[in-house]
Amino acid sequence: MADTTPTPTPAADPAAAWRGRRRRKDHGTKRDAVIRTAARAFDERGYHNTSLDDIAAALGVTKPTIYYYVPNKEQLLFECFLAGLEPIRAALRRAEQTQGSGRDRLREVIHDYAVAIASEYGWCMVRAEHQDLGPELSAQVRSLKSEIDRGIRRLLQTGISDGSIAVTDPKLAAFAIAGALNWIAHWYRAGRTLTSDEVADAFVQLLEHGLAPRAPDGGKPVRTPGRVRRAGVAAKS
Amino acid sequence: MADTTPTPTPAADPAAAWRGRRRRKDHGTKRDAVIRTAARAFDERGYHNTSLDDIAAALGVTKPTIYYYVPNKEQLLFECFLAGLEPIRAALRRAEQTQGSGRDRLREVIHDYAVAIASEYGWCMVRAEHQDLGPELSAQVRSLKSEIDRGIRRLLQTGISDGSIAVTDPKLAAFAIAGALNWIAHWYRAGRTLTSDEVADAFVQLLEHGLAPRAPDGGKPVRTPGRVRRAGVAAKS
Repeated sequence: MADTTPTPTPAADPAAAWRGRRRRKDHGTKRDAVIRTAARAFDERGYHNTSLDDIAAALGVTKPTIYYYVPNKEQLLFECFLAGLEPIRAALRRAEQTQGSGRDRLREVIHDYAVAIASEYGWCMVRAEHQDLGPELSAQVRSLKSEIDRGIRRLLQTGISDGSIAVTDPKLAAFAIAGALNWIAHWYRAGRTLTSDEVADAFVQLLEHGLAPRAPDGGKPVRTPGRVRRAGVAAKS
Repeated sequence: MADTTPTPTPAADPAAAWRGRRRRKDHGTKRDAVIRTAARAFDERGYHNTSLDDIAAALGVTKPTIYYYVPNKEQLLFECFLAGLEPIRAALRRAEQTQGSGRDRLREVIHDYAVAIASEYGWCMVRAEHQDLGPELSAQVRSLKSEIDRGIRRLLQTGISDGSIAVTDPKLAAFAIAGALNWIAHWYRAGRTLTSDEVADAFVQLLEHGLAPRAPDGGKPVRTPGRVRRAGVAAKS
């Protein structure tokens, strides 16, 4: 890298956690860089086509260095899954503590879920399937996915009870929401036309109101003006 | 299998294409049985954890017999993808030839898409990713997926033009629809509470109208009474 190139932030270039900067990096920062680099490699090449050697090479370190932070590739996939999931779990915790209608609270969860899936961890979150993980990690993945699913169903049920949501089957609705959002990992790439926040706003609108035109007296906007405006920008891409 | 057991149909038991019945089965039927069996095996164990030996064993044939119908596992994944995709392509062809609003025509495509993804081919359709296929088959998968995507976007655009659909970004809406529908492959299992038709009806309702309650004069049902009733049954599961 030429000296004139701006130093990438750790988020933009995980390898920067190792090189260039003289100050000592802590164990957690380097471990995060390993996980982030793995997430990007799995996304680009697929889990089965990515070796720990590839990840070490991307970071400019040796494979034993990788082993210092994670015991194996399976654990790396699991760690990517956890890193991506945490913002969604945090959004659900906030929703549980917030006042407001079920729909208002679910809206924020959908937004933050979309942003999380549009992150570099999105592909791992969607790909962390039981056939790639041993029984113990697989059980943990299923448990955490169920926790998210139950949280969304609870908010749907709250919205049905308070009249802010009109679906007949919260279980199917939760699957539809999760599907639309998880799929973002299949098509979204950062740095193209839309930011993850713009995608999230557009998905909130779609999931709340569907494809059908709203009746004249049902047309009041449901996001704050700022968010509606950003979704409008997304619409032009 | 005991003599008293009813003979399974080929759809229920692909291995029946080989055994039990004395009449000669044609090449196409046996090839279909290989593809269907592969689809089920990939679904249950994952593509990388399924060998041609496993598929041969499930059919009660030898591996050379499998090679008579398909050259390799990669081609099998591709054939599963094609078999699952065909009903969606057919639905899009019908939609192109049908009169009616964009939303009316899209509704039927969404329904048939959901049923196709809930079939045994669903997992292969969602899993047939470029990293598991060589460059040529991968290019064909991408081309066919793009064709579906373009077809859905065209119907969305038609609906926007005729006023039956109100979305600001047909591209994002097409991704949301595809995501919600493709995700069915992750959670739906045949033979449980809901038929694939019931799931399809419920998803049509959700994607058309979203989570928000409809305004009083926007509440007219959009499916035929029979379909609405079946979606109501789905809602109780």
